[in-house]
Amino acid sequence: MTYCVGLKLDAGLVLLSDTRTNAGLDNISCYRKMFFFENPGERIITIMTAGSLSVTQTTIARLDEAIEDELADETTSILKAPTMLRVATIIGDTLTRTRREIAEQCRDLKQQASASMIVGGQRAGGDMRLFLIYPEGNFIEATEDTPFLQIGEHKYGKPILDRVVTPATSLADAQKAVLLSMDSTLRSNLSVGMPLDMAVIEQGACAVTTRRRILDGDPDFAQMSAAWSAALRDSFVKVTI
Amino acid sequence: MTYCVGLKLDAGLVLLSDTRTNAGLDNISCYRKMFFFENPGERIITIMTAGSLSVTQTTIARLDEAIEDELADETTSILKAPTMLRVATIIGDTLTRTRREIAEQCRDLKQQASASMIVGGQRAGGDMRLFLIYPEGNFIEATEDTPFLQIGEHKYGKPILDRVVTPATSLADAQKAVLLSMDSTLRSNLSVGMPLDMAVIEQGACAVTTRRRILDGDPDFAQMSAAWSAALRDSFVKVTI
Repeated sequence: MTYCVGLKLDAGLVLLSDTRTNAGLDNISCYRKMFFFENPGERIITIMTAGSLSVTQTTIARLDEAIEDELADETTSILKAPTMLRVATIIGDTLTRTRREIAEQCRDLKQQASASMIVGGQRAGGDMRLFLIYPEGNFIEATEDTPFLQIGEHKYGKPILDRVVTPATSLADAQKAVLLSMDSTLRSNLSVGMPLDMAVIEQGACAVTTRRRILDGDPDFAQMSAAWSAALRDSFVKVTI
Repeated sequence: MTYCVGLKLDAGLVLLSDTRTNAGLDNISCYRKMFFFENPGERIITIMTAGSLSVTQTTIARLDEAIEDELADETTSILKAPTMLRVATIIGDTLTRTRREIAEQCRDLKQQASASMIVGGQRAGGDMRLFLIYPEGNFIEATEDTPFLQIGEHKYGKPILDRVVTPATSLADAQKAVLLSMDSTLRSNLSVGMPLDMAVIEQGACAVTTRRRILDGDPDFAQMSAAWSAALRDSFVKVTI
């Protein structure tokens, strides 16, 4: 499985993904699930992926191919699309076409080949937006009421987000929130694993502001994780019923 | 959906279930999911249920009927079975027979009719035991390494249990832990709802020690929930990355 989470805040986007991919329980690998398509200052598009690796890799490869195509235009290239809505539509269409082809190839197996994506970004002159694209190509968007979107193993890490994230949350607090959300998921579900990829995209920058890979054993992450565990246990002792 | 959790501790069993049942999203009702079969001082058996209401109600009704049958013996009545293992086997067999019959009745619909159960208890002279019974009738048992079992919407409330529950946890702390686990689930998933049923069975008592229904708006639960939220937000501020 996978866990990816994206926050759309007044101050910008904060994105976090794990890297664990498994085919069954005994075939575990590490693959990046966060991808950037950037024309710095003009537009930034980030995609995070969950689901069948053959579907997500082929979808990303096709989006790349469409960008590099000499005949690329605003209906096919996400770097030429005039709005983030059109970007989401191109990605959704590419995802569902790929998913259908692979599902057809796999029809003799009783396996599902499905995938979903979180797409965030901004184009100069346009609003910053964050979408969750379903396997069927349709999508929903983060709003003021619900400023975060999750794909993959989303349940373990939802309670902390429900409690602390609002559109006014600072980028520093937001990074802490997604890391704690991931920490709960890592502890309770083996199918989500280190290393992690985190990115921050400031409002209006139209470029990646910071990008960081957090490796297994990263001292800052380990310290935060231990401090959070200690704080939870401490809170547990203090709360009375 | 449902959330039920059972803890098997050195000091006894702590059990908690919600009461929300839904057929689709627009048909929501309240049904008890915690059942007691008791011969105080000789044996106590508790069952918590998740899944299709027609399967769980019929299974419980058949277990009752088997107890009251004049021909009841140790192979059919859970109040006569010589060990908790036999109790779990009778319940598992009754569950899977019921599930198969109802699935057969429903085969024209494309609906699943499935259910799982948590069974805990003790018989005088025997060990206290806690089982999770799968829809197929097979089961697993809580151990020292994993002293809790969950059915239904188990993911939201798992991180807190993973962090604080060990076999040495006191009955008071255990009640707090299951209530906080439920609180996280209630906040993040509408298909789990108040009121709650909680029971404590002390080691060796072979009877229910305390049993409590927690209604919506219960001041103690509301205070604990608010204090936990405040403590989490406070911890969130203190933890640094």
